[in-house]
Amino acid sequence: MQPCHVALIGATGGVGREILQVMEERELSLRDVTLIASAQSEGTRMEVCGRKTVVRQLTKDALADVDIAIFAAEVAQSQDYAASAVSAGAVVIDCSGAFRLDPQVPLCIPEVNPEVLPTHPSIVATPHSLTVQTVLALAPLHTAASLRRVVVSTYQAVSGMGRSAMQEFDQQMRDLLNFRSIQTAAFPHQLAFNCLPQCGDFLDNGYTSEEMALTDETRKILAVADLPVTVTAVRVPLMHGHAATVYLETARPLHPDKARDILAEAPGIVVQDDTKRLYYPSPARVNGQDEVFVGRIRADLSIPHGLHLWIVADNLRRGAALNVVQMVERLMSA
Amino acid sequence: MQPCHVALIGATGGVGREILQVMEERELSLRDVTLIASAQSEGTRMEVCGRKTVVRQLTKDALADVDIAIFAAEVAQSQDYAASAVSAGAVVIDCSGAFRLDPQVPLCIPEVNPEVLPTHPSIVATPHSLTVQTVLALAPLHTAASLRRVVVSTYQAVSGMGRSAMQEFDQQMRDLLNFRSIQTAAFPHQLAFNCLPQCGDFLDNGYTSEEMALTDETRKILAVADLPVTVTAVRVPLMHGHAATVYLETARPLHPDKARDILAEAPGIVVQDDTKRLYYPSPARVNGQDEVFVGRIRADLSIPHGLHLWIVADNLRRGAALNVVQMVERLMSA
Repeated sequence: MQPCHVALIGATGGVGREILQVMEERELSLRDVTLIASAQSEGTRMEVCGRKTVVRQLTKDALADVDIAIFAAEVAQSQDYAASAVSAGAVVIDCSGAFRLDPQVPLCIPEVNPEVLPTHPSIVATPHSLTVQTVLALAPLHTAASLRRVVVSTYQAVSGMGRSAMQEFDQQMRDLLNFRSIQTAAFPHQLAFNCLPQCGDFLDNGYTSEEMALTDETRKILAVADLPVTVTAVRVPLMHGHAATVYLETARPLHPDKARDILAEAPGIVVQDDTKRLYYPSPARVNGQDEVFVGRIRADLSIPHGLHLWIVADNLRRGAALNVVQMVERLMSA
Repeated sequence: MQPCHVALIGATGGVGREILQVMEERELSLRDVTLIASAQSEGTRMEVCGRKTVVRQLTKDALADVDIAIFAAEVAQSQDYAASAVSAGAVVIDCSGAFRLDPQVPLCIPEVNPEVLPTHPSIVATPHSLTVQTVLALAPLHTAASLRRVVVSTYQAVSGMGRSAMQEFDQQMRDLLNFRSIQTAAFPHQLAFNCLPQCGDFLDNGYTSEEMALTDETRKILAVADLPVTVTAVRVPLMHGHAATVYLETARPLHPDKARDILAEAPGIVVQDDTKRLYYPSPARVNGQDEVFVGRIRADLSIPHGLHLWIVADNLRRGAALNVVQMVERLMSA
């Protein structure tokens, strides 16, 4: 499938632009790139791999002659057009969440479960950005000591919500620092100088869609259908970089030093963990980084086989774009 | 002991000012108030209960003829002068953390364990602000169903670190929003638009002083020496209001509806929990409030007897000042 024709739906959004950036940096051998976005963005000119390209609207015609169609827009666009892309002969890589839990659709983090990617798939899905960073750290520990329990609390950045939320957050900050009243539309309540225990929509079980996404996607990728994973997802007032506290219990003993060694050697992970030098990862330091950063690795003091981690990554780049581009690379080399 | 003479050490600090405010609002019948602060603040004039009062420096003389000495300064001041205050006949209420885990010193949240306050104590301690809000919510659930496990992740505001940190955070925000480089002195790293998994100092066991404070103080107040409590404490970029996700397991079944009822009737607690109306507490909404606010009350989906809470309170007012003033009231009426 090389060189290939890629269509990018959602090309003008945060994830779309990051995908273009990563494709360019990794010098993918592309025959053509079709940029697709919403009606408002039609006609926008963007430079892709050194060529000026005009953004098109999402139609069936726009998906003709495409080898790989990357859906990085909303769930609705994926639901409405993924099947058309497949009918037209393309492989769909979906970032929207529309297909992540579909048992027919492989959910893939290339460093963790590349084996789920068939040579000629129809649709494959990339996980929620939080799942990518969490499971990249959990997977090698699961292999080493078998996870029995995972309790996650998240510290999620605004950029995961898209551009209107980013603009609103920036405006809220400036308004509050200048003693003006604030507007709220993209967020359920004020986020500036605040934390909101709501990421996504509330479901009937009292959890939010993103809490359940992290729970269910972790189980699917680690292939442990009943793994006891539980999540509280919280939006924090910062633009980029998701963080999470992860408490886990393992079936077999796993000393923190051993966990540190395992993580240090795991693909895609960087351990930053030296409390004596106040060295640990934080969202402000992961911008533009490809890796998942893990710190605060320590034993639980009151439960045997209990371990704590602090996991941070660039949610747009590592959590979305890089994962997608790595899948493109694998499909191209198949 | 009524009307009584109160000395307030740390009168010009954030907690000190909040204590004065709460004493005034609750109209304590005080014979005299002596304001004490560091050498830089000596001579400052402050209005207390309608009277202009001059701030004095901390000396043994300043503690003469005092009925209740409230130490709301640093640990060093408490260590150096609490014994002098006791020798001079005063009861010491210590906010500094110097005595919280001293087995001879009662650690008290008046709504939870008033019985530990003797009629004529020498030193009593008020817990860390996070302990106050967490244990106020945990105590009635422990009574109802017996806690077996508590896992906490915190979202801690800047004001818990004092005035220089608040000024630095404000300046960092303004600098970043104006594309200027930032200064870091009070914080270990940039906090503006960031989260730092460090509250307090790192100990040899890999935990921070504040993580261990919440662990040990919770055990002491609930009088369960080996209660498995485990904490990750994270500083978030906002000025006021501590929040925490709390996951707990109970020995006996505890339905979330029952937990909600218990908390709604518990002293000092307000339940804000209606996900259909996107109703839950958040730090920006608790400023100046006396209560601890609890939301996101839900059953764990994968473990029996597991429950999740989201707990928020004004850290200076409810977490520190109100707790102290309620102790003053009890001592005065003894």
